[in-house]
Amino acid sequence: MEKKHVYFFGNGKAEGRAEMKAFLGGKGANLAEMTNLGIPVPPGFTISTGTCEIYYQNNQSFPKRIVDEVEDHLHRLEKNMGKVLGDANDPLLVSVRSGAAISMPGMMDTVLNLGLNEKAVDGIAKNTGNIRFAWDAYRRFIQMFGDVVKGIPHSEFEEALDSVKKAKGVEDDVDLDAEDLKVVVEKYKVVYKKAVGTDFPQDPKVQLWEAIDAVFGSWNNERAIKYRQINKIEGLLGTAVNVQSMVFGNWSDDSGTGVCFSRDPSTGEKYFFGEYLMNAQGEDVVAGIRTPSSITDLEKNNAAVYKQLVDIKDRLEAHYNDMQDMEFTIQESQLYLLQTRNGKRTGPAAVRMAVEMVYEGLIDKDTAVNRITPEQLDHLLHPMINGKVKNSLTEIAKGLNASPGAACGQIVFTADEAEKWVDDGKKVLLVRKDTSPEDIGGMHVAQGILTSTGGMTSHAAVVARGMGTPCVAGCKELIISEKDKTLKIGSKTYKEGDELSIDGSDGAVYDGIIPLESPEISGNLHKLLEWSDEIAASGKRKDVVDGFQVRANADQPADAAMALKFGATGIGLCRTEHMFFDEEKLEKFRIMIVADSLDERKTALKDILKLQTVDFEEIFRIMDGKPVNIRLLDPPLHEFVPHTERETEALAKATGKDPKKLEERISSLHELNPMLGHRGCRLGITYPEIYDMQVEAIINAAVQVASEGKKVLPEIMIPLVGTVNELAPLRANAEAIIEKVLSDKRATIDYKLGTMIEIPRAALTADEIARHADYFSFGTNDLTQMTFGYSRDDVNGFLPDYLDQKILKDDPFQTLDQTGVGQLVNMAVEKGRKTKAKLKTSICGEHGGDPASIEFCYRAGLNVVSCSPFRVPIARLAAAQAVLKNK
Amino acid sequence: MEKKHVYFFGNGKAEGRAEMKAFLGGKGANLAEMTNLGIPVPPGFTISTGTCEIYYQNNQSFPKRIVDEVEDHLHRLEKNMGKVLGDANDPLLVSVRSGAAISMPGMMDTVLNLGLNEKAVDGIAKNTGNIRFAWDAYRRFIQMFGDVVKGIPHSEFEEALDSVKKAKGVEDDVDLDAEDLKVVVEKYKVVYKKAVGTDFPQDPKVQLWEAIDAVFGSWNNERAIKYRQINKIEGLLGTAVNVQSMVFGNWSDDSGTGVCFSRDPSTGEKYFFGEYLMNAQGEDVVAGIRTPSSITDLEKNNAAVYKQLVDIKDRLEAHYNDMQDMEFTIQESQLYLLQTRNGKRTGPAAVRMAVEMVYEGLIDKDTAVNRITPEQLDHLLHPMINGKVKNSLTEIAKGLNASPGAACGQIVFTADEAEKWVDDGKKVLLVRKDTSPEDIGGMHVAQGILTSTGGMTSHAAVVARGMGTPCVAGCKELIISEKDKTLKIGSKTYKEGDELSIDGSDGAVYDGIIPLESPEISGNLHKLLEWSDEIAASGKRKDVVDGFQVRANADQPADAAMALKFGATGIGLCRTEHMFFDEEKLEKFRIMIVADSLDERKTALKDILKLQTVDFEEIFRIMDGKPVNIRLLDPPLHEFVPHTERETEALAKATGKDPKKLEERISSLHELNPMLGHRGCRLGITYPEIYDMQVEAIINAAVQVASEGKKVLPEIMIPLVGTVNELAPLRANAEAIIEKVLSDKRATIDYKLGTMIEIPRAALTADEIARHADYFSFGTNDLTQMTFGYSRDDVNGFLPDYLDQKILKDDPFQTLDQTGVGQLVNMAVEKGRKTKAKLKTSICGEHGGDPASIEFCYRAGLNVVSCSPFRVPIARLAAAQAVLKNK
Repeated sequence: MEKKHVYFFGNGKAEGRAEMKAFLGGKGANLAEMTNLGIPVPPGFTISTGTCEIYYQNNQSFPKRIVDEVEDHLHRLEKNMGKVLGDANDPLLVSVRSGAAISMPGMMDTVLNLGLNEKAVDGIAKNTGNIRFAWDAYRRFIQMFGDVVKGIPHSEFEEALDSVKKAKGVEDDVDLDAEDLKVVVEKYKVVYKKAVGTDFPQDPKVQLWEAIDAVFGSWNNERAIKYRQINKIEGLLGTAVNVQSMVFGNWSDDSGTGVCFSRDPSTGEKYFFGEYLMNAQGEDVVAGIRTPSSITDLEKNNAAVYKQLVDIKDRLEAHYNDMQDMEFTIQESQLYLLQTRNGKRTGPAAVRMAVEMVYEGLIDKDTAVNRITPEQLDHLLHPMINGKVKNSLTEIAKGLNASPGAACGQIVFTADEAEKWVDDGKKVLLVRKDTSPEDIGGMHVAQGILTSTGGMTSHAAVVARGMGTPCVAGCKELIISEKDKTLKIGSKTYKEGDELSIDGSDGAVYDGIIPLESPEISGNLHKLLEWSDEIAASGKRKDVVDGFQVRANADQPADAAMALKFGATGIGLCRTEHMFFDEEKLEKFRIMIVADSLDERKTALKDILKLQTVDFEEIFRIMDGKPVNIRLLDPPLHEFVPHTERETEALAKATGKDPKKLEERISSLHELNPMLGHRGCRLGITYPEIYDMQVEAIINAAVQVASEGKKVLPEIMIPLVGTVNELAPLRANAEAIIEKVLSDKRATIDYKLGTMIEIPRAALTADEIARHADYFSFGTNDLTQMTFGYSRDDVNGFLPDYLDQKILKDDPFQTLDQTGVGQLVNMAVEKGRKTKAKLKTSICGEHGGDPASIEFCYRAGLNVVSCSPFRVPIARLAAAQAVLKNK
Repeated sequence: MEKKHVYFFGNGKAEGRAEMKAFLGGKGANLAEMTNLGIPVPPGFTISTGTCEIYYQNNQSFPKRIVDEVEDHLHRLEKNMGKVLGDANDPLLVSVRSGAAISMPGMMDTVLNLGLNEKAVDGIAKNTGNIRFAWDAYRRFIQMFGDVVKGIPHSEFEEALDSVKKAKGVEDDVDLDAEDLKVVVEKYKVVYKKAVGTDFPQDPKVQLWEAIDAVFGSWNNERAIKYRQINKIEGLLGTAVNVQSMVFGNWSDDSGTGVCFSRDPSTGEKYFFGEYLMNAQGEDVVAGIRTPSSITDLEKNNAAVYKQLVDIKDRLEAHYNDMQDMEFTIQESQLYLLQTRNGKRTGPAAVRMAVEMVYEGLIDKDTAVNRITPEQLDHLLHPMINGKVKNSLTEIAKGLNASPGAACGQIVFTADEAEKWVDDGKKVLLVRKDTSPEDIGGMHVAQGILTSTGGMTSHAAVVARGMGTPCVAGCKELIISEKDKTLKIGSKTYKEGDELSIDGSDGAVYDGIIPLESPEISGNLHKLLEWSDEIAASGKRKDVVDGFQVRANADQPADAAMALKFGATGIGLCRTEHMFFDEEKLEKFRIMIVADSLDERKTALKDILKLQTVDFEEIFRIMDGKPVNIRLLDPPLHEFVPHTERETEALAKATGKDPKKLEERISSLHELNPMLGHRGCRLGITYPEIYDMQVEAIINAAVQVASEGKKVLPEIMIPLVGTVNELAPLRANAEAIIEKVLSDKRATIDYKLGTMIEIPRAALTADEIARHADYFSFGTNDLTQMTFGYSRDDVNGFLPDYLDQKILKDDPFQTLDQTGVGQLVNMAVEKGRKTKAKLKTSICGEHGGDPASIEFCYRAGLNVVSCSPFRVPIARLAAAQAVLKNK
């Protein structure tokens, strides 16, 4: 058990440090760090995250030793500040804020102005000579305490406030004078008593302990839990609580508050970015109620403070070697930093900053590559509006470019509706005045978010950037009626379900659905991925031959082109079954399936051979010089047969067969568990002529494309092998065909023959299988199905319960199960390499694009991961990060 | 490479021994052994099985060193006999016979009288003074050589013979004199030349080499391959060839030939059993053309020879310590033994002999237990006709009791038809005049075999006994027309498809289908199984706690009673789903499935609880003192829902629900791959109330039955666990229920909570799972399905091809795949015991009754095998044999 639970900071000295983030929370650790750096920070103390754990272990209460320690530090703070909490002359006021090790913006609770009561309000008034300020602070405190600590609905306080404004005939809070605010305070106390049942507490220590209790309690509120789930935040002890002496941005006209960044968190551009409001509290900026000014305007307000702030910004960025997100308050021209942290950023900003910081000599390439999360890269790969198209469009409104990427969809007006509509398979834009933490679920499923109020640091903007969801915020032209479910822009009214598009990169809003296009890999992104490839290629382990490479799964020429564009080093999986679904081949294939004799089957296959050869030729041409791993036919034949009477009749006509007999044949192909049925190499064994045709087509195509001067590297893969006795004859058949084609055509082709490891038994007997395989490719989709005994098609009957109840940590079809399936992968690699020391191994299941799974693959000694073309950049980054992590 | 390929025997000395069976074949090794024992054996030599292997390696021809070695031994034989092959005065004649290490009766070829030609026939005539005999031998030789070596259809020779008989106006061969036989020989030569294209070879060496070639060639004929497949004979080098000087049972009236056994191979009774024919060759006895006399009649024919034979029989049985099957020939009152071997026997005979030989002090108990094959035991467990029923029946015919057990079925007249009808799901009796090796396939699938000719040693009788198929042979009342597909018995004509029953134990034939009943464990069988249990119980390994035990799979009280009767030590698997299929429970269960709320579901379950409690009570009462392992609900819910509109309407009525909504609910339960779907403990997680109900019912029942003074040992098993995170909460739930029931009833029950290991991932993570399991039971059906990726329901699409092409050695659902699935079993046992050193492990899949799998289970360290009640005796024997084999 730790000895110390509370850490003091103030006047240039702090007991904590930046490295103690896990224990002091991000906010507390950085307050300590800034204090030690000599940056002006209002003194205070941090109650550790470990205390939060103790709080929960102790049935949400505090052992005496903790109470004593906190109160000791409170006395120290009072002494340090020369003020006393609740004092009638010069009272100390404090803020009580949460701060976990990982930032969870807006998720937990904060109480400001704590310490005010009937006596202290007079003390503040006396001390500041500003009665109005004192009573405004008091009424804000009651409201915040009532809301945060006691859960009294915000609207009840707003109603009380509105009644006073109405009585006086004014619209803005600022038009209320001290006497009005005294009335408001009285009304607030009535609201409080009515809701809580007791009077508003006058003892500042009671206020403090209730606030601390509320902050710790907020760690496990529904919102916070959901946020941690969505963001996969795990393993934290809890939140810390920061009790800090108050400074007031609303003290006077030469006071103010703001949020600023050392670089633009949206684009990554290197300039001082931020917003501030004079004579306002921080919550005014964040809430988006008043629209703030740009930070650069501060120079005009107060050049000295601005210079000091710029100086601090530069020092902090250089100190942390990363872009800083800072909160500051100016009280009577005195600058205080209330927070600094590594700033959240969009994907494009992350990439730009990382690359530019390498150029600036701030960080090295490894750090740059490690600084981008795969999720951020994903944001960059979001659809965009083509530049030319964009020029031809007319904006119907313009807001802030709060989170990049374009999005289209049907508009809905509540987060709940968004979730419902998406459940029904629709794509929605969530349109709100502003968003609040309760909207998280709906924001998560929406294509994009459009708000009418709030700035770049409003809740909607911050959360959308974090999620990589396109967002246009603060779009003032929107007139939203949540009640009527309408959105008015100019004279036009849009109803729920009408279609809009937004571009989060420039804040534009468009009517209807705009066709989107996929992003390019260029500029900084190209550079970052180049560095990633270098790092991945350096990832040589003694048992891995060619570093660690990323290929793409591509079945069609268009996919292959996309794969190349995204930097794939080859095709890791080319499934041939999709080729059969074009009309001409499908008909021939059906004729083949229902053939009564081998001869009839072979005739049909001869026709398909020509068509399939062309398929392969196109892919080989595109992939010039890069390997193409082609999987022979895998799905069961019944996937190809007619499913309607009309189709059956057409087939009967084409074959001259009796439709009834055809139906019998078709229904004889039906299987109870097709996933465990007559498919993969089992077809190759029972209908060898199908694989023979495919192998012939591959080699024909290879010879043709090679004769055109291109380099062709075909890899032929036999799927669903469960025993070496399947692979050995199928390989022999394929080799015979290949030799015949090559000798007929007097050609040579550098080919490989491999197999998939996707049946548990194949992994268990990989030593035997390796004897006949040039390479292994792990089909982790099937391997997961069979290792768990879960049908991917049916898993939704229980998987949601399993995830809810934490029976499974992740969907094993998304993130490879290292404990179970991973054992089989490790076993297969080990056994395979016992037989063939340099056996190449790869993964071609869906997991090939999942960063956690990619790291596992690297550790397992795989040479290649293959994923969908769109995931290739992410996989390239993840591969580099895997290598770095395991250096 | 071996030095020696040919082994001589003759005149009291042989180069081989009985132990050299693998190398000399059974016949050759025993001829050598008998020679060394001083028993009269015609001299000859054996060409080794290794030579057969060389023959095939050498492209079906002989290297010179082999040719030289054979010819050296031929000269030695000529010298020894004082005769020369093909000599015009006193020629040597030899037989050329196959003889593999494992007897394959009738499967390979034999040529007799080899050495005869135009000159030698005169030599024989001169030497014997019997011209007719000489020409009869010659014509037999041409026919046999033409048939066996050249493949000339038997019928062509028969036609030639018939034409001569017709011309002379006689019916029997014996009515032909020497001159007639000369004509036959001429006609045979014409037949030969017409078929082969060259003259019948006159050079005896050419005859010999062609015969040897034919015998080795017959090793791989279709019949022999099929026989080895059916009988799982593997790993042999090939057949040996025995070249032996001829003796003639048809030399004279004081010559003869016969087959005899030291005990009755059908019943095991200890008396001299056999048949012989005077003035006949061995083939006449085997072919069943003449009906032979009982061996005991030989005493009247020739008391001296009989005494000598009885003496030899006693010596051989004592020498081999086993029942001997001998062939002998008498030539002019001189006795020669041509073969001895451990006799094939029926299951009852095997058991009786083994037990009696222990009582006689001939063998010990271990040997007795090892001497019974599980297949033989299976024969004993075949259905029989109840004694009382039998007394009331009227036999319509009576034949020989050739192979025990009763059988009923539709009659068919060819082996091909038998196979076809069985493919169509019918049960057939194969009715034939006699059977030949070509009929093997049909004999294998028939319920029983009924022939009109042949004795106890006819092909039909021998093969049927080997297969354990009931057989009535030599039933002379049958008039069979294969052409018309009719069977006439008395005045009644039966057509193909008509129903008959046979009793192979007494040779009776009955009209129609007789109800059959299952056998009892008593007498010798009881004793043998008692010894088996003692041996199995002694099979203590350091990691196996309670020896090796056999339990039964039993779902119903009747099964439980059967299990006890057959000696099960408990119930290894009691599946609860079958309990839901009785009408009352099914209706309630359906109401539960379609319930809209938890409350509705719980109400339905409350009704089922009472009914299920009664089910368990009955089983516990029967199993008093023996453990009962109950598996909680396993199959997916859709197996229980209504499948017809009528049933759906009934359910709608019972629940008051809208039939349309019911149909929606029902169809929502449909799964694409139900085997990998929402079943097993996945139901327990999503519908915990179902398992809660079952656990409550089990403990309720246990408390009730314990209160009646019985000892109840319930084991509750959670199926389909794939991760410890499933088992841990389900176990906790079950424990909570159990504790509540026991505390409510103030009772204690000695229960266990275990799990099935049937998902590959469970085996891979068995160390974790063992933390929450009192025992493991391997569900090798599912484990096989998932490890291979084969759906048992769909495997027939490719499994037959896989077995044909030897991709799989066995059907993995019948015999546990030790290479793949076995690895997982070993891994799970090892990992499980790493967590809990004394973890009990068992198997409850179909493999629990398969002897090879049982041995694997013992080696894997399992404590218990469980199988269907009928297989329990076989499993008890196999368990003992496993222990003996691994001592």
